[in-house]
Amino acid sequence: MDESKIKSLDLLFKPRNIAIMNASTKVGYFIHGLETQGFNKENLYLVSDTVQEVYDIKCYKSIEEVPNDTIDLVILAVRRDKLVQTIKEVLQHKKVNFFHIFTAGTIETDEAGVKIEKEVKEMLTNTSNNTRAIGPNCMGVYCPKGKNAYLGIFPPESGNIGLIFHSGDLHTKMIRYGAARYGLKFSKGVSVGNCLDLQVSEFLEYFNQDEDTDIICVYFEGFSQLHPHEGKKLFEVLKKMEKPALLMKGGQTQRAQKAVVSHTGSLATQQKIWDAIYQQTPTVEINPSLDEMVDIANIFYRCYKERNANVEGYDEFKCPKGKNALVILWSGGIGILATDTLTQMGIDMPLFEGETKERLMKVYPLKIGSLSNPLDLPWIGRTDIFYNLSTTAITEDIDVVFIETDAPREFKDDWFTGYYENLKRIRDYINSLNKILILILHEYPEANREKYYEMLIEDEFIIYPTIERAANAYLALYDYGQKRKLCY
Amino acid sequence: MDESKIKSLDLLFKPRNIAIMNASTKVGYFIHGLETQGFNKENLYLVSDTVQEVYDIKCYKSIEEVPNDTIDLVILAVRRDKLVQTIKEVLQHKKVNFFHIFTAGTIETDEAGVKIEKEVKEMLTNTSNNTRAIGPNCMGVYCPKGKNAYLGIFPPESGNIGLIFHSGDLHTKMIRYGAARYGLKFSKGVSVGNCLDLQVSEFLEYFNQDEDTDIICVYFEGFSQLHPHEGKKLFEVLKKMEKPALLMKGGQTQRAQKAVVSHTGSLATQQKIWDAIYQQTPTVEINPSLDEMVDIANIFYRCYKERNANVEGYDEFKCPKGKNALVILWSGGIGILATDTLTQMGIDMPLFEGETKERLMKVYPLKIGSLSNPLDLPWIGRTDIFYNLSTTAITEDIDVVFIETDAPREFKDDWFTGYYENLKRIRDYINSLNKILILILHEYPEANREKYYEMLIEDEFIIYPTIERAANAYLALYDYGQKRKLCY
Repeated sequence: MDESKIKSLDLLFKPRNIAIMNASTKVGYFIHGLETQGFNKENLYLVSDTVQEVYDIKCYKSIEEVPNDTIDLVILAVRRDKLVQTIKEVLQHKKVNFFHIFTAGTIETDEAGVKIEKEVKEMLTNTSNNTRAIGPNCMGVYCPKGKNAYLGIFPPESGNIGLIFHSGDLHTKMIRYGAARYGLKFSKGVSVGNCLDLQVSEFLEYFNQDEDTDIICVYFEGFSQLHPHEGKKLFEVLKKMEKPALLMKGGQTQRAQKAVVSHTGSLATQQKIWDAIYQQTPTVEINPSLDEMVDIANIFYRCYKERNANVEGYDEFKCPKGKNALVILWSGGIGILATDTLTQMGIDMPLFEGETKERLMKVYPLKIGSLSNPLDLPWIGRTDIFYNLSTTAITEDIDVVFIETDAPREFKDDWFTGYYENLKRIRDYINSLNKILILILHEYPEANREKYYEMLIEDEFIIYPTIERAANAYLALYDYGQKRKLCY
Repeated sequence: MDESKIKSLDLLFKPRNIAIMNASTKVGYFIHGLETQGFNKENLYLVSDTVQEVYDIKCYKSIEEVPNDTIDLVILAVRRDKLVQTIKEVLQHKKVNFFHIFTAGTIETDEAGVKIEKEVKEMLTNTSNNTRAIGPNCMGVYCPKGKNAYLGIFPPESGNIGLIFHSGDLHTKMIRYGAARYGLKFSKGVSVGNCLDLQVSEFLEYFNQDEDTDIICVYFEGFSQLHPHEGKKLFEVLKKMEKPALLMKGGQTQRAQKAVVSHTGSLATQQKIWDAIYQQTPTVEINPSLDEMVDIANIFYRCYKERNANVEGYDEFKCPKGKNALVILWSGGIGILATDTLTQMGIDMPLFEGETKERLMKVYPLKIGSLSNPLDLPWIGRTDIFYNLSTTAITEDIDVVFIETDAPREFKDDWFTGYYENLKRIRDYINSLNKILILILHEYPEANREKYYEMLIEDEFIIYPTIERAANAYLALYDYGQKRKLCY
C-alpha cells in the first residue's frame, strides 16, 4: 500500500464534516455520540426525505442540497435494498473520503447480500477520489481527538490505545469496561464489520505509524470472501509491527466458526494459521474473553513509558526481565492460594534464605505473620516496619511484586493514611528499580471498595481483582518483551 | 466417633455462655461480633487481671470469679507462653465444653510450639467433661442462629451453607465476598487453625447431620502432626457424605507446601491422595481460588431445593441432566466468544436445524440478529417476541440457558420494565421444566450496574460476571449430580 493511502485514514477518525444518510431518531446514538465529543454541528449534515429535523438539527432533503462538495465521512443508515442506489446517488453529487456502511444483512445473510457487497466494492474501486469504506454491519468510529463517536457514553478524554474490532458490540464493551474498570483511554477505535473494503491489516499499518497510538487491540473473526489475499497480508503486517498488537481471535472452535458465518459472514480459518501468527510474529495472544483483553491492555497501558522521549519515534515499554515474584499480604490462607496459583502459572517465588532472611530479621523479627515469600504482614501496614520489610524483601532477583490490599473501614483514620502512604512509597521505590508493582483488590460490592478502587486508579496503580488475572497480564507483557527483545 | 460427641458440637456454635480470657480492646472484634449478632451480654464473661472493663463490660479478675460452673465456650486470647497455665487454671475452676484457642505461634513456629500443643492435647484428653478445642491459630466461629461471630461485619441472617476453613482470613473473606457478591447465607462456619484437637473430618460428620446445613465448603491445608490417622478418617468421611462438600486444597504445589508449614504447621500431603479423594468420593473439587469457591457455592445454594419437603431428612439438589446450553444475547461478537468458551469447556450448544428453526421462523423471522444458537436478539428485549423466541428455542435437549444482560439506562422506562418482566417469565418457564437459567452481568463499575445487580440477587436469579465462571460453576453442579446419581 502506498504511503498516501495510509495517511488518509486520518480523515475517517477526524473528519472535517460528516453526513448521515436516512437520518432519524432511530440512529440518534450517532448524533449523541458526536454531541458528547463536541463535534461542530455546523459540519454535521443530516439527510432525510421523510423528516424535517432530528433533535433540532435540520435535515436536508437530499445529499445534493448539502452545502459542501467534499464530505469526509458519510454514514449510511439505509436498508440493504437501498444501499447500492444511495451510494450511487451520493457519489454522483459529492466527493466522499469515507463511507461508514452501518447497513447490516449483507454478506452474512444470503446470496443477495453477497451480490450487494460486490456491487458496492466495484463502485468504490471506480471512484476517482479513492473513496474508502468501513462495514457493512459495523457501528463505526471512536476518536476523542476527532470529536467523533457513535455513542454518547464514550469518554471524551483521549489516550493511546487503538482498537480494530470485527464486532461493534465488543468494541463498545471494550471502551466501556476498559474505561470503567481500569481507567483506560483510547486514541482511535473502529468497528470494521464485514470488511467489504478496508481491511484489518490496513488499520494495523495505520496504527503502527499513528502518533496518537501506542498499543493496539484487535478482535478478529475471519477474512472477507471478497479479499482472498488478506490472510497473507495480515501475517506480513503483524510480523513488522513495532507497537504491541493484542489480538483476540473469535471462532477458535469449529462450533464457534459456524456462529461467525452468521455474524460477519467471514471465511473460517484454520487454527494452525493463528498458531503461526502467534509464534512467528510479536502479536500478543488473547484468549476468547473480553476480560482478558481488557486485563492485558491495562498492563501494557500502565507500563508504557516514553523512556527515550528525546529520540523521536522511539517509545518503549517497561518489559520485565524475568518471572520472579514477591507476594505481600495480610494473611496466610490467601498466601497459600496465591503461591499455588502463581507456581501453576509458571511464576517463581524465590524463598528467603540466608542473607535476605537475616536482613529481614534485623529489620523486624515478626511475632505474627511470616518473614518468608509470601510475606504475611498483618496489622503493621501503617508503620515504617511495613515499608522497610517490604523493600528489604525486594532483592535483585525479584521482577514483580504483588500486594494484596483491601478497602479501609475509614478513609481518614491514621491507620489508612499511613498505610496508603506506604503503598505509594513502595510503588515509587519499585519503579525506581524498574520493576513492577501490581495491587490485588478483590471484587465485591461492599461499602468503600468502590471509592478505594477509584482512588487507586486515579493514583495510577496497576490493579487487578485476582492474582490469577494479574499474573496472566504480567506474563503477556513478559512474553511480549521476550519476543521483541525489549528487556536487555 | 460416638453419636453424643458429634451432637455436642452444637454448643460450640450455639454456646449458652462465653468467657474471653485476657480480654482487652485488642480483641474487641470478638465482642463486636457477639454484639452484632445479638448475643446476650449477661452470658458473656470477660476475664482480665489488668483492666476493669472493656467497652463498658465489666471484667472479672479471674475465671474463678465467673458466676457459672459450666462455660460452653472459652476463648483463649493469651500469649503462647501462658497458654498451658491458663487452660490449667480454667479447668481447675470450671467445666468447659469448648476452648477456642486463638493463640498463634505454636506448631507452625518452632519446636517449643510443638511442645505446647502436645501439652494442651494431653490436658484435654484427661478432662472428665470431654472438653474439646478448636485452634490454636484460628479466628473462631460464626453462627447467626447461635448469635455467635468473631467479627462485627458478619451478617446476622442465617442460611444453609456450612464452612470449615483452615485459614481464618479465608473464612472471613468467604463470608464477606459470598454475602456481598451473591447474597449467600451461612448456617455455621468455623476457622479451625492448627487442629490440635477437633479435626476437619469431625466437622464434616457434624455438618452432614446438621439440620441447618445443606452445603459444606472446606478449605484444607494439611494434617496436624498430632493426628497421624486423620488422612484415612477424612477419606472415609468424604466417601459417606450425603450433602455436597466443596473442598479447596491449599498447597497443591511443592512451593506452596513450604508456605503451608509456616502457616498452620500442617504436614504436607501428596497430591495423589487428593486426586483419589476427588475421584473416589462425591467431593466437589475447587481449584485454589476463593472466587471459584464462592462461584460454585453460589450455584449449589441457588439450585438447592427441598423437592421432597414431606420426607424428613431428604433434601435434593436440582442437578442438571446434561451439558447442552442455549445462549441468548444481544450481539454477535460476545456470542462468538461465548461459543468458543463453552465449547472449549466441554459444554455443547446444539444447532437449531429443521423443526426448531422452522418454529422459530414462525414466531418471528428476525431481520437483525440471528435465529441460531447463540440466539442474538438485539432491540426486542421488551417485547413478547423476545419471550416467545427464547422459550421456543428451549427444546427438550437444552439443559441450561445463559442470558447475557446489561444494566439499564433507566429503571423506570417501558423498555426496562418490559424486559425485566420477560426475564422473570423466562426464568419461571425454565424452572417449570426443571432446567437452569443463568444470567451473565459483566463486572464494571458503571452507574446503575450495582443497583441492577442487587435487584437480580434480590429476585434470586443465578448470576455470574462472566460466562466462563458461570459455566465452571454449572459443570461442578453437573459433575456432582453425576457422581451422586441425582439426576435420573
